[in-house]
Amino acid sequence: MVTPRVGMVGGGQLARMTYQAAIPFGVTLRVLAERADDGAALVGGDVEIGSHTDLEALRRFASGCDVVTFDHELAPPELLTQLEAEGHVLRPSPAAMRFAQDKLWQRDRFGALGLPVPAHARVATVEEVEAFARANGGWPTVMKAARGGYDGRGVWAVRSPEEAAAVLAEGARGGLTLFAEATVDLEREVAVLIARRPGGQSVVYPVVETVQENGMCRELVAPAPIDPVVAAHARNIAERISDAIDVTGIMAVELFVARGGVVLVNEIATRPHNSGHHTIEGCVTSQFENHLRGVLDWPLGSTAAMAPAVVTVNVVGGPSGGDPRANLPAALAIPGVHVHLYGKGPRPGRKLGHVTALGADAGEVRERADRAAAILVGEPA
Amino acid sequence: MVTPRVGMVGGGQLARMTYQAAIPFGVTLRVLAERADDGAALVGGDVEIGSHTDLEALRRFASGCDVVTFDHELAPPELLTQLEAEGHVLRPSPAAMRFAQDKLWQRDRFGALGLPVPAHARVATVEEVEAFARANGGWPTVMKAARGGYDGRGVWAVRSPEEAAAVLAEGARGGLTLFAEATVDLEREVAVLIARRPGGQSVVYPVVETVQENGMCRELVAPAPIDPVVAAHARNIAERISDAIDVTGIMAVELFVARGGVVLVNEIATRPHNSGHHTIEGCVTSQFENHLRGVLDWPLGSTAAMAPAVVTVNVVGGPSGGDPRANLPAALAIPGVHVHLYGKGPRPGRKLGHVTALGADAGEVRERADRAAAILVGEPA
Repeated sequence: MVTPRVGMVGGGQLARMTYQAAIPFGVTLRVLAERADDGAALVGGDVEIGSHTDLEALRRFASGCDVVTFDHELAPPELLTQLEAEGHVLRPSPAAMRFAQDKLWQRDRFGALGLPVPAHARVATVEEVEAFARANGGWPTVMKAARGGYDGRGVWAVRSPEEAAAVLAEGARGGLTLFAEATVDLEREVAVLIARRPGGQSVVYPVVETVQENGMCRELVAPAPIDPVVAAHARNIAERISDAIDVTGIMAVELFVARGGVVLVNEIATRPHNSGHHTIEGCVTSQFENHLRGVLDWPLGSTAAMAPAVVTVNVVGGPSGGDPRANLPAALAIPGVHVHLYGKGPRPGRKLGHVTALGADAGEVRERADRAAAILVGEPA
Repeated sequence: MVTPRVGMVGGGQLARMTYQAAIPFGVTLRVLAERADDGAALVGGDVEIGSHTDLEALRRFASGCDVVTFDHELAPPELLTQLEAEGHVLRPSPAAMRFAQDKLWQRDRFGALGLPVPAHARVATVEEVEAFARANGGWPTVMKAARGGYDGRGVWAVRSPEEAAAVLAEGARGGLTLFAEATVDLEREVAVLIARRPGGQSVVYPVVETVQENGMCRELVAPAPIDPVVAAHARNIAERISDAIDVTGIMAVELFVARGGVVLVNEIATRPHNSGHHTIEGCVTSQFENHLRGVLDWPLGSTAAMAPAVVTVNVVGGPSGGDPRANLPAALAIPGVHVHLYGKGPRPGRKLGHVTALGADAGEVRERADRAAAILVGEPA
């Protein structure tokens, strides 16, 4: 083979955008999708339908690939470990992915490595939650599921022992491991993307602010409007984590910036991530291209910004059910916006796409991106 | 259908890059490719194999599309006219494409419209060529085939009646219509891209210099290093042509800039074109995206430059047969270069891809792009 065969487990929008980034390299990304109408399956020429929870499907898929990488962290760790033991090349490795799959394990390990993490403790009883709350500033306290949460799922702010009991009961029903976490007096949330090769070479992207709404990232502002010292600290944390877990490809580190500038690690993702969509037009090399370069052990591309201000606004299905595919021409009338649709039908709360704008002034840029995103879901301001 | 079905006749690299540009719009570009290993067929999920010279294949393909557009001008005009008569929507129209298909017709019509074209005359005998040469500065004179030439094919510089006779004999064997054209005292060649909607709205790209080598474009330098008055004139010519022929989608106008600043129309292409590859990273909106927006009658995107200097170098197969797919990682070690491979095996003189670099200084940018292109074909300087 002149060209390596890269396979991505999962056929969502991250695989879709990675597929797009692979075309100029002459690399045909193979995709293991659950359904033929998954975002990446709609655009890819080399799609296998199968589940990431089925060892046989994973094995068959991996056999046709030189390198296997991931669109999500949902494949069971034991299956990934099995594939690796059978000689398949998984990048990132199951060991690195575990940090994204298990938040409690991540918190414990990162804490042990001296990385700044919020105060936290595993909890199984109301008494344990009460004790944790008492020791960490009182109610409300945060409860989280160690595994499986995203976009606000698996996270609860509890205001009383009664609310804690309800979450514990829900956790018990779902077989979840839960932990309590101190409420952070948030100034803002930021994220740092880093791309890394197997040998350890890496490139770090400028810090981006992630504006959350109901636990879901709604907006990215690059560069994040924070003190350069805080930004340098955040980038340094990302580098330390990437080396500590020996990640390959893109890793996203989501961080809390507490009032006063204290930076704490929130979550990590060991794959292209929603907090890096602005890099497609906003940086010299997109996160998707650098993910491919990283997992292929190729030289990484520049992460420099293409404009003084870059804003990405997620297009999230609204209550009116407006369809971005139908509203696309109207949105394109706004000057200089880059629209990315994921090939999904509209549904309230569903991520359907994103819009990126570049310019000299963050306020002006954000206004354009916001306006286009609102038009796309049929709810112009 | 929420999303219009766009079909492109021809499966080469232009269709491949248009396919890539269609993904963020949720538009799945359908491709009519001649072979399963054509550049676009390798990456597309919706490929029909068939010939652009087969009316049945064209008809079947067009039936599955809301809009049909083109990766080349090689489909016979009479077949396109037939499809249009049957009610299929062809953008550009066969009438507009004729200007790209027949150079002599183009010269005559443009001349009649008052557009600046080189002196020319249809020739069928040596006496006619001699008379033309005498009236237009003597030998050498240029002879061209009205149809079918590209990348230097179908163009001859003849230095004597004997050479003219040889070209006439070759033309007679091939059933070609030939014309003679005055040799232009070239300062440089430039190109102007314009994107246009059916209603006439259009956007013009900054003028780019096209550096030719053996009749093939080897390098693009944007903006072209020419007098702003000459550049404005070139852009105005492109606008006049686009309105005169009522083109839809991208049109490229290749122009001669003669010493003294006189601008003459050379050729036009009524589709995305090699002279616009720098727009992928070098402009806010790529030619491929604006081609789609134009043929879909959607608002057109900004053509503004992303950097003070943008250079694209074509990757053309060299004598050593070096394979860009194998040399890609080495080329990516050069900072800030964007490599696009077309999925083709190497062959001397074959266009295998291109490299674009952006920066503040054209010399520095060109050096990086040249170096990456040389590494790709295994012939580093």
